[in-house]
Amino acid sequence: VRTLVPALLAALLTAAPTLARPDTPGAIIARAPNSDWQAVDPNDLLVIDMARGRVVIQLAPGFAPVHVANIRALARAHWYDGLSIERVQDDYVVQWGDPGGRKVLPKTVVQPAPAEYERAAAGLKLEVLPWRDTFADVAGFSGGWPVAESLGKAWLTHCYSMVGAGRDNNPDTGTGAELYAVIGHAPRPLDRNIAVVGRVLGGMDLLSALPRGGGELGVYSRVQLIPIRRVRLAADLPAAERPAYEVLRTDSDTFRAWYQLKANRQDSFFLHPAGAIDVCSILPPLRSHNPPPLAPSPAKR
Amino acid sequence: VRTLVPALLAALLTAAPTLARPDTPGAIIARAPNSDWQAVDPNDLLVIDMARGRVVIQLAPGFAPVHVANIRALARAHWYDGLSIERVQDDYVVQWGDPGGRKVLPKTVVQPAPAEYERAAAGLKLEVLPWRDTFADVAGFSGGWPVAESLGKAWLTHCYSMVGAGRDNNPDTGTGAELYAVIGHAPRPLDRNIAVVGRVLGGMDLLSALPRGGGELGVYSRVQLIPIRRVRLAADLPAAERPAYEVLRTDSDTFRAWYQLKANRQDSFFLHPAGAIDVCSILPPLRSHNPPPLAPSPAKR
Repeated sequence: VRTLVPALLAALLTAAPTLARPDTPGAIIARAPNSDWQAVDPNDLLVIDMARGRVVIQLAPGFAPVHVANIRALARAHWYDGLSIERVQDDYVVQWGDPGGRKVLPKTVVQPAPAEYERAAAGLKLEVLPWRDTFADVAGFSGGWPVAESLGKAWLTHCYSMVGAGRDNNPDTGTGAELYAVIGHAPRPLDRNIAVVGRVLGGMDLLSALPRGGGELGVYSRVQLIPIRRVRLAADLPAAERPAYEVLRTDSDTFRAWYQLKANRQDSFFLHPAGAIDVCSILPPLRSHNPPPLAPSPAKR
Repeated sequence: VRTLVPALLAALLTAAPTLARPDTPGAIIARAPNSDWQAVDPNDLLVIDMARGRVVIQLAPGFAPVHVANIRALARAHWYDGLSIERVQDDYVVQWGDPGGRKVLPKTVVQPAPAEYERAAAGLKLEVLPWRDTFADVAGFSGGWPVAESLGKAWLTHCYSMVGAGRDNNPDTGTGAELYAVIGHAPRPLDRNIAVVGRVLGGMDLLSALPRGGGELGVYSRVQLIPIRRVRLAADLPAAERPAYEVLRTDSDTFRAWYQLKANRQDSFFLHPAGAIDVCSILPPLRSHNPPPLAPSPAKR
């Protein structure tokens, strides 16, 4: 239940007779059978440890296979270790990588050609939302991912918490060495112009609350840079440090019932059920087991 | 220019011949004549001073007149002084007010009846966007405000930075004593269910970067509460402390050219202009003169 005076609402709900209590999105998720949950492959989980906590990103090899291969190679080469969060622009993105752009990439890391901004819609099983999308013919979900589709092409949508590969001006297509996460209203005009490579599953609240950068476009000054201590694939971490995530299957009846109720809320707070919901308001729910991140560094940060 | 590798892009743009440089949204705004800017009435500017800085909110008397009258009365009674930011929920809202809900309201402050969740569309001059809205028949702007309209009713949309009046469960309609600002993807299903009373014009980056609350729904524990020192209408502040804002007129050719270009970016970073833009991605640009807020308190916060 997501309302604005939670204590009082909780009291009211508790006081109401059980039979009169309307269904809620949270209750639907709580009832989901285990078979509706899909474990994320630990080779698709990128784990970023910083002094202030851990960020975990699910990679999207079905949409950006070359970028994801690059990101896995960079993590396995420990290439990201010691880089920085370098930009936080309000209502837009947090970005991290090599602020000077001078760190040499491993030879195996290449720019994708063609660019991975979109893919063929053919072969994607899409759960199509029955409501209008402003930017595409249809929007929906495929394999847990938010997708828009027009004229035979499909692409991941730039929703809050989605991760993309920074790039220089066209014709640069990026490599995955610079990454950003969306921390504001969905900047959908970036769709089909940058490769979306994943979604933040854990630590989003850490990224979104970072101080906004004082420079143009939110770029951090040298003293603002926030060091990244270690970036690994979950598959390469010792078992005791390895996070595990499950994403609700977007082809399940549970997911369909959940987003229909998000569009048509029945609890008494809502007088005018919206009758619709947009793709970026219903990223699939998660379950996680996230062990404590790296022990705090003895060095003062 | 909002791109992901600003330094390099700036270099490229600087290097390009002037004649080949495509128009940009920022350049359109820079060319706007003074007559396209509308000064905000200082009686419509709510100024919130905290130890960490200042937040300035434009009130919307055309949409929530009773709430706005309440908010003005509460500010003039100094009722808000000493209250707290009490809730920060990621990708949703920051909320402030009286955490215990025990502070007695002035007798003139009453709940609006009927509720101010929507108004008659008749009498509103709406600049209608030519693209589909997921939640309403049409969306657009009126008098600087983002508006959706269906079946003769119009309402302010819950976009990033919009401010609403917290309320308890239906049939409570709120008073303006509890306020919240949107800090995530537009939660449009709140539209028509809560009164939207304004928009944050200044200090949004301060609100959005607050630590997320550890409690259910982002509620702050007692030790997390962030004190609000002083809340006044700009009209009641001494001239030296009074902020001034101008909002681009949404019935101007400049605004129309600006949002059309935001929907169809021409600069070379963009390979696939979106061909559309949603109402929450194009809140009208601002100009401001914001003097330094209150001197830092000698007391340790």
